[in-house]
This record gives sequence, structure tokens and C-alpha cells, in this order.
Amino acid sequence: MKALKVGIIGFGTVGTGVYNVLQGFKDITIEKIAVKNINKKRNIDNFDENLLTDNPYEIVNNPEIDVVIEVAGGVNPTFDILKTAIKNGKHIVTANKELLAKNGSELFALAKENNIIILYEAAVAGGIPIIMPIKTILCANKITKIAAILNGTTNYILTKMAEKELSYDVALKQAQDLGYAETDPTGDVEGFDAAYKISILSTISFNKKVDINKIYREGITKITADDIKSAKALGYTIKLIAMGQVLEDGKIDVRVHPMLVSKKHLLAKIDNATNSIMLSGKPVGDLVLTGAGAGSEPTASSVVGDLLVLASELEASNKPIPQAICNHDQVAEQISIGDTYNEYYISINATNNPGAIGVVGTICGKNNINISTIMQNGINEDNTAEIVVITELSKESDIQNALNELVKSECINKIDNLLRVMN
Amino acid sequence: MKALKVGIIGFGTVGTGVYNVLQGFKDITIEKIAVKNINKKRNIDNFDENLLTDNPYEIVNNPEIDVVIEVAGGVNPTFDILKTAIKNGKHIVTANKELLAKNGSELFALAKENNIIILYEAAVAGGIPIIMPIKTILCANKITKIAAILNGTTNYILTKMAEKELSYDVALKQAQDLGYAETDPTGDVEGFDAAYKISILSTISFNKKVDINKIYREGITKITADDIKSAKALGYTIKLIAMGQVLEDGKIDVRVHPMLVSKKHLLAKIDNATNSIMLSGKPVGDLVLTGAGAGSEPTASSVVGDLLVLASELEASNKPIPQAICNHDQVAEQISIGDTYNEYYISINATNNPGAIGVVGTICGKNNINISTIMQNGINEDNTAEIVVITELSKESDIQNALNELVKSECINKIDNLLRVMN
Repeated sequence: MKALKVGIIGFGTVGTGVYNVLQGFKDITIEKIAVKNINKKRNIDNFDENLLTDNPYEIVNNPEIDVVIEVAGGVNPTFDILKTAIKNGKHIVTANKELLAKNGSELFALAKENNIIILYEAAVAGGIPIIMPIKTILCANKITKIAAILNGTTNYILTKMAEKELSYDVALKQAQDLGYAETDPTGDVEGFDAAYKISILSTISFNKKVDINKIYREGITKITADDIKSAKALGYTIKLIAMGQVLEDGKIDVRVHPMLVSKKHLLAKIDNATNSIMLSGKPVGDLVLTGAGAGSEPTASSVVGDLLVLASELEASNKPIPQAICNHDQVAEQISIGDTYNEYYISINATNNPGAIGVVGTICGKNNINISTIMQNGINEDNTAEIVVITELSKESDIQNALNELVKSECINKIDNLLRVMN
Repeated sequence: MKALKVGIIGFGTVGTGVYNVLQGFKDITIEKIAVKNINKKRNIDNFDENLLTDNPYEIVNNPEIDVVIEVAGGVNPTFDILKTAIKNGKHIVTANKELLAKNGSELFALAKENNIIILYEAAVAGGIPIIMPIKTILCANKITKIAAILNGTTNYILTKMAEKELSYDVALKQAQDLGYAETDPTGDVEGFDAAYKISILSTISFNKKVDINKIYREGITKITADDIKSAKALGYTIKLIAMGQVLEDGKIDVRVHPMLVSKKHLLAKIDNATNSIMLSGKPVGDLVLTGAGAGSEPTASSVVGDLLVLASELEASNKPIPQAICNHDQVAEQISIGDTYNEYYISINATNNPGAIGVVGTICGKNNINISTIMQNGINEDNTAEIVVITELSKESDIQNALNELVKSECINKIDNLLRVMN
């Protein structure tokens, strides 16, 4: 292994984890750590305060430093900092999913130009080995589908809602109290975090640049205790699924939304903050990779893993590793949600009227939607009825048309929820 | 990627899979394929019969060939063939678990001497990426435990026994009829195959040579329909588990035996011929990797994956990749089964006598065994009673002493089975 001098940008949970793990590797020297607040008390044994700087450019402009480890996150000012690092000939190990999703193309192009390696195992699914395996041992495969639980916060909330029959608000509050959710939970609960990750994972898996702005995204805030109860009665559990697939015509379908997942599916069994990635490829078939998707230590495993691979490759050769460069030259042709085909769960509030189920059936039929299950799910105090429908494979635009028609019908009060189904 | 010329030794299921997958990679040329029977009709489109030879030494002595792909299996004559290949400067990609388990040390030493790389992703768990991730992205970790389902045949048999309440013999017969088990199933059902794999996996994970001859091994042939029924009633399913762990004193505990696995454990949910590996490391925590453990295409994914990594590394450098060499210098100090601690399931045939449970409890107590559950599991036609015991963590030698004492007791007819438990 080549002895390396590194600078770390960002010294929160992940940065501290990386610092601690690196103490076990004598060939890696930490030259400098860039922090926001240089005066903050650090709770680390024998810590040398002289390592700290509040100017990250001291790292990226330091000619002694070989590799920049970026665990600060965000786009500004990180994007500019990393561009400077690359121009200065420094290799990059980053956990920054947002930056890669939004500005990865520009960053990878700049890296190629400068013969620089960017590794980013920690940006997707924390400690789970996925990016490096796709680039190495799985590289004989044509990967055609990914379905994954990539956000621990939402999976924790959904797990508690199901286990303890909690409302979304109560489960979110508990997750916040326990540190699983942030004070402003938007990035997690609205699916932004999962969307960044699936855009990176789809790009590397399908070898075509996936545009984060074209990813359909729906969070978990509208999931009710009733939805979870109905799903359970039908043999499903609700998960926030990030998925990407290559369609027969070569177009790419990438999205993030909650789904009813059949209890027989391995992803249905992934509870709490755990992440899991199901990947389908030829010739490998289906693989499921499960582990901690966040946290100081698991994320540090991936950051330091990338760093050690880099050190070992740089010792063997000064040329960049071919597989380590992500191909962003070809752009994916992404389809819109209206053009996707799914099975659906529809929960409907109707008048307590013998004709309601007939109306639902008729309108679905008119819109090319075959129903596989329809059940009346109890009568409310206001004498309205809850109807739950599971459809066969249908086109999203047909479903949207049917819903528009349904709400105009006299015996339908409102559509409570529409969710997609994975069997 | 460096253009490579390869020779394939062995042209059965896996060899044919590798041949097919390689058709998609124009930089890899298949020079020669060594087969047992050169006259056998091959069911492959546009196949060039001139590729075939029945003399594998034509491959390993051919100066044109860069890499030998060995998918023939067995120790004789494969060991000698591969030694010749290495001495002739050819890199090796192999799926041969038996050879690596039995003669890996000698083979890796010879490879090191000759600056040769041996890659063997396909030798453990078919298409699941495990060897390469341990050597690359997980290399910052200290791996302390592996618990895995590494044999598809036995997992298929146990799944069918549980699903359809079949006896072992009937389930084996069905597995044979469907091609999941061989005519002579010994290698699978007696745990030899899983033992080869866990010896390789433990050696690379713990970075110490594990001796295949010191691995405790027990197969599934004694599992009865009653065991599976009792396990189910207690919240468990029975799986053939290959495990390896580093104990606190640095000694290594590696073994293969059936276990009652708690239904809450992810490994309990791995059905049919699927394989799954749970790996615990620091800092990564617990990872579970699941996929097809055998079969033409999944195994070819790993063989060709190894080959493409090799091609890409050889292009960047002519020096072997440091992580790709397995450390066999340090020898593991393996403990014997008597020194292991486990929870146990004991099924006992007793006289139908109110004192029997008391006798079991007393003898267990005398031998330092705490019982967590004891249940009488029905009366047989011959008026004997079935008693099932689950113990707390106990030393195996204490358990063996207790069993010896139990069978001497008047009210105990025999010990039907002893299995270990994983919660």
C-alpha cells in the first residue's frame, strides 16, 4: 500500500468516524481537517487541535495532500472546493450524494481531464458494499433493475407506524426524539435523500447518466395508520422504495415513492434504519445486499475502504483504475411517471351506499384497469365507507384518469391515497 | 482493459456459462477449452469444435494463454494442472472450492513466488459478491463473525421439508428428481461443500489460514419432520449454517452444522436454493448478502467478473494487485466443538412418566445447563413421550456429558436429536 497524506473536509458524525478508523492505519496520515467551527470542543482522546482549520482551501491547495476526503455534504461551497482539489491533482473520496446527484457529470468530467479518481461508496447505502462491487466483480453483468430501501429515517418511521399502529406524526416525533430524524425532516421524509442515492446508483448500474430532475419523487408524509392497516390485511407492508429499471425499449424508469411490498418479498423484512438493495442483472440474477445505511462507523467503513483501495491501486500503478471512472457520456432517456406501469393500491372514501363498489368497478373498467381485490374496509362515524382497491398492472396515466373521474362521481367523497404495489 | 487470451478447463454447467458470457467481451479470446470427452455433442450455437482438447496441459503449457479459467473441480488432477499453469506464468481464475480448501496454502505460496494472481469469487456462494468486496471495499474492517447458508441443495431440501412437512428422504428424492441434488448427494447433505466454502471465507475474512480438517462438520441427514415441526412451534426454522468467528482470545471457531434459526433472523427467510452470508465487522456492523449460490449464469458472473478485474488491473500495471493475494502465512488456532458455547435444542424420547421432565431438568442442572424452554411434545403410539428442550448458552462438552447421563437414566429411552440454536 502506498503511504498517503489526506485532508478531511467535514468533521461531524462521519468525519469523526473516519478519523477514528484511520488511527488503525499507519500508512495514512491525516494532514488537516476542515471544520465549520474551529473552537468547538471535540470529544476525542489525544486529539491534536493543530490539525483543524476553518478554511477548506488550506486542504485543497496544500501540495502535501494526496487525497481529499469530503464528508461535509451539500453543494455550496463543496462543489467549488472539490473542483479546486481536482485541478490541484488530488484524488477524491466523498460521501456527498447531493453533490454527485446534482453536479456529478461536471465533477467526473473534470476528474477525467485531470487523471483523477473519485470514489464514493459511502454516498449510497452507508456501509453496504455496492458501488465498488458494481464496478469490479459484477462488471460482467447487464444490470436491468434496482429496487431498494435507501433511507433509514423513513424506514424507521414506517416500521414504528406498523409495529405500534402509530400515526405518521407521532412516529416522526419519536424518530426525532431518538435522533433518527432531523429537526427539519424534509430531506428524508419527502424522498430527496433517496432520490439522490438512486440517481447515483442507476447511473453506475445502467451506465447512463440519470438526471436527478427527471426522477419522480413522492415522500411518506401522506401515509396513514389506516393505509398500513389495510396493507397488512392484504399481505403487504409499506416501504419507501427507490427504484430504477431499464425498459425493453432501452428507456430508463427511475423513481422514489412509497410502495405496498408483499410480505413474501425480502425487502418487506428490512426493518428500522436498515438499508437494503435488490439488484437484478444478467447473468447474476437477483442479489439482495443489506446493512446499515448510515451512522458514523458503517459510513467510515466505506470511506476508508475507498481510501485503502486507492492507496493500493496507486502503489501498483500511477494510472487511474479504469473501472473507477463512472461513465456519464451517455445520457439516459428517462420516462415520466405517467408512462409507467404498476399495480396500485387505491383507498377511497365513499358514501355508505350499495352502489359505491359498482361505480368504482365501472370507472376502473372504462379506464383499462383490472381490479384484483376490492374490499370495503369498515364504516366511519360519519356514515361514509372506506373502500380499498388493488389493481392489476395498469398504466399510471389510466389510473390518474380513473381517479379524476371517480372524484366527480356522486357516491365518492374523496381519494384518500394512491400507492404503488410491489409483489 | 487489456486484451487477454484465456483457456478454460472444464466445460460442464459452469464452463458453458462462462463461454456464453464471454461472447459479449471482444477483448477476451478463448484459445482452448479442455474437456473430459471431446466427442460429446455440445448444444451451443456456432460452436467451433476446434477449441476443444482433452488434454488440459495443452492449455497450461500454451505460451499464448494469459489466464487459465478452472471450472473442472476436484483435486486430482486439477492441483497439478494449476501448479503447472502458475509455474508457466499464467494467472488463475477458479471456482474450485475443494482444491482451495485442501491445497490453497501451497497454491497461493506458489502464486506469490511466481508473481501470479489467483482469483476465486465463484468458489464461494456462486454469484454473490463476497470475496472481492472483502479484499477491497471492506478492507478497513476487522471481520469477527460469519454465519451463512452456503449450500443450495441442503437449503432446498430443508425448505421443502418445512413447507410440505416432508421427511428427509422424500425431500431428498424430490430434490434429486428436480436436479437440485446429485445422485450421490454426500458432498452436499453431509456438509462437505459448505465446509470447503466456510474454510475459504474464514481464511480471507480473519486473515489466518483455517484448516479444513479442523472444521467441525455435521450434515442434515438426521433432521426429522418432527424436529422441523417442534422448531416451528418454538419460533424457529432449521437451516444448515456454516459459521466462523474470532473469539475474544483470538482463537477461531469454524464449523458447519444444522441450526434452529429464529424466525426473526434474516437467514431464516432464505428459502430454496438461495445462499446468504451474514458478516459482522468493525466498523461496518452487520451485512447480509443474498443471491444465487450456484447455477451456470450466477457462477459465470463471478468467474467473468474476476477475469475482467484482472484484465483491467493488468492494463494499469504489470504488478499483481496487493489485495488479491490471500494471506496464508498466519495459521488460525481453531477450537474444537467441545469448547464452543451454544444454545441447544435437544429432542428426547422418554417413558410416559410424570418424572421424566424432572429427570431432564435435574441432569441438565448438574451439568451447568440452564433450560429456557422444556415442552412435552405429544405421546407416541408406543406410549413413549417426546420431550423438547431449549437451553441457554452452554458449553458443548457439558451438553455431551448431560446427554451421556440422560441415556443412562431409566425413564429416558434415547436422545432423538441435538441441534444448536441461533437467535
